[in-house]
Amino acid sequence: MSERFKFDISATDGNARTGVIKMQRGEIRTPAFMPVGTAATVKAMTTSSVRATGADILLGNTYHLMLRPTAERIDRLGGLHKFMNWDQPILTDSGGFQVMSLTDLRKMSEDGVEFRSHIDGSRHMLSPERSMEIQRLLGSDIVMAFDECTPYPATKDETRVSMELSMRWARRSRDGFNSGKEHADKSALFGIVQGGVHEDLRRTSINALTEIGFDGYAVGGLAVGEGQKLMFEVLDFTMPMMPTDAPRYLMGVGKPDDIVGAVERGIDMFDCVLPTRSGRTGQAFTRRGTVNMKNARHRDDPRPIDETCGCPACSDYSRAYIHHLIRTGEILGAMLLTGHNLQYYQDLMSGLREAIAVGALREHVAAFHEKRLGGDITAL
Amino acid sequence: MSERFKFDISATDGNARTGVIKMQRGEIRTPAFMPVGTAATVKAMTTSSVRATGADILLGNTYHLMLRPTAERIDRLGGLHKFMNWDQPILTDSGGFQVMSLTDLRKMSEDGVEFRSHIDGSRHMLSPERSMEIQRLLGSDIVMAFDECTPYPATKDETRVSMELSMRWARRSRDGFNSGKEHADKSALFGIVQGGVHEDLRRTSINALTEIGFDGYAVGGLAVGEGQKLMFEVLDFTMPMMPTDAPRYLMGVGKPDDIVGAVERGIDMFDCVLPTRSGRTGQAFTRRGTVNMKNARHRDDPRPIDETCGCPACSDYSRAYIHHLIRTGEILGAMLLTGHNLQYYQDLMSGLREAIAVGALREHVAAFHEKRLGGDITAL
Repeated sequence: MSERFKFDISATDGNARTGVIKMQRGEIRTPAFMPVGTAATVKAMTTSSVRATGADILLGNTYHLMLRPTAERIDRLGGLHKFMNWDQPILTDSGGFQVMSLTDLRKMSEDGVEFRSHIDGSRHMLSPERSMEIQRLLGSDIVMAFDECTPYPATKDETRVSMELSMRWARRSRDGFNSGKEHADKSALFGIVQGGVHEDLRRTSINALTEIGFDGYAVGGLAVGEGQKLMFEVLDFTMPMMPTDAPRYLMGVGKPDDIVGAVERGIDMFDCVLPTRSGRTGQAFTRRGTVNMKNARHRDDPRPIDETCGCPACSDYSRAYIHHLIRTGEILGAMLLTGHNLQYYQDLMSGLREAIAVGALREHVAAFHEKRLGGDITAL
Repeated sequence: MSERFKFDISATDGNARTGVIKMQRGEIRTPAFMPVGTAATVKAMTTSSVRATGADILLGNTYHLMLRPTAERIDRLGGLHKFMNWDQPILTDSGGFQVMSLTDLRKMSEDGVEFRSHIDGSRHMLSPERSMEIQRLLGSDIVMAFDECTPYPATKDETRVSMELSMRWARRSRDGFNSGKEHADKSALFGIVQGGVHEDLRRTSINALTEIGFDGYAVGGLAVGEGQKLMFEVLDFTMPMMPTDAPRYLMGVGKPDDIVGAVERGIDMFDCVLPTRSGRTGQAFTRRGTVNMKNARHRDDPRPIDETCGCPACSDYSRAYIHHLIRTGEILGAMLLTGHNLQYYQDLMSGLREAIAVGALREHVAAFHEKRLGGDITAL
């Protein structure tokens, strides 16, 4: 039988690492970017197209799936992988982040969160135990502990109280996860470090989590409006305190330069809706930066978005055509641009992995920044 | 050099025919269904996916393309085939039908139609000459004559006057088409029979068109609200008057049983937005009839829409998943259902072609009707 969960780091360069997470459903090359498949679909993409970009793992959202079509229904239908036709690993979030954002529809307690569905107002409960149950019903490969994403900004006292609650919930998440033995034997559980922008609270959180023991450790409470500079400062003091032999996951990040800076600081995994959401609104990610394909300067341009990109949009279509599709609101525009953006993100990750492998990350990152010219792709 | 245009009928069965149209960009197996690519895209589909369903030819809309991105722009970018990445034949309509439907925005004269764009109110002119020019700029393989689609209902006098105008425009279309020699040498021009529900007017129209001479003949002015019974009656008396050695195209048709009945009456080509539009609103075409995939009875159904269908939706996904995608408004739902519906239509055509080829159309059509049970696919 293959490994339940094994993380092999094959090379480091400064604080950055590259390696492979081995799981029963497949290998995840790190640093990894996970496309977001919110409602059991990466929006505007078939799973085979997502796989073709180089994605090794998808993210699924517990909150959305528990409401529609429900975890119980997905379980009856054979699990999330079969439901959405994706046989590689899936990481599911705990539902905590989305539930916390339902400011007017939720009630927090030590036990968990009572909330009303944003779809039909129906009542639901999320707790560490229920989150573990849902992620088990979905058949998740990497299960996230249920935590409170500390609001930003928050006072240090508020941050401490929130973090301490999350640590108690982390213990309950571990117990809940372990109680589903059959699923626990073939999946992994990640804990989530909280503590906001405070080094001592982050240390307390890490100590609490490593005491419990997890397969990987996420950095939570970032990318919530604090800005890149502060996010990097938090990573600068948090990374050295984290276990070196387990994957480190920066949740909800981010823009390409966020990812590059976080990889330099030792992060191994990322997820973000940016490439997919941007694809549906006409934004293309390129070596030169983000480009608005709605802009009239593209309308006569026979060149591909990026001739060095191997995605269908760049192999088969002109900037003029993509521009036309976006301007006319055609679904194919969202399909092609989403595919391009996911390809950009996967190419970004493979470039970082290769640079770390040969010890050339510094030069690679310098070249990455030098190429970016405020989205001017006319010079591409 | 390959043929400009050649129609080989390989078998007949009653009034039905099967064969192949040979053109420089490829062969079109008849009876043929042409998916509609209104704005240089078959909505929610890549061209390779459209081709994979078995489509030999697409339809492009002159009206939409002349407004956005404009025929001149498409010409500068290398033509419609290159623009939208489709190397098989394309038939373009003349723009007449869409322009006529702009009831409050158009002004008719002997010369043509002045109209305002439904997008930005800008002024435009369509005439036989301008329509031929636009279709030439697009690089169309099968060009449609510019005509007036007679309103329905109309008096016999109104129908005669309109038909006679269309016949004068047919002559001007032929002259305009011929004047673009380089394009005329590698493409084909179809005339459009008008005359409403009146046998004598249809005869007059056919005589006028055959006198001018066209590569194929369309039946216009049907599928405009007259109902299937009356449409079939018109076909019953019109088909025997039409040339037997040229393709016959029933424009804008239709539902599967419309197509089956029209094939029985001798029609060779069809186009319709129904499979694509229905795919975006949750309707699936099946052997049992049209099914609303939004219906709650599908939500726990692990079976494919139709296990005998080879499309991606039926190969890889359950009815429950398609139902979920449609209910949550996911783009992938439109993608998968559009693909399924186009596959259904192409399978319908290939079934008819094979039945005609072996002289078993009557039995084939009887089985087609017998299977249809008001959209109840639970018995599939």
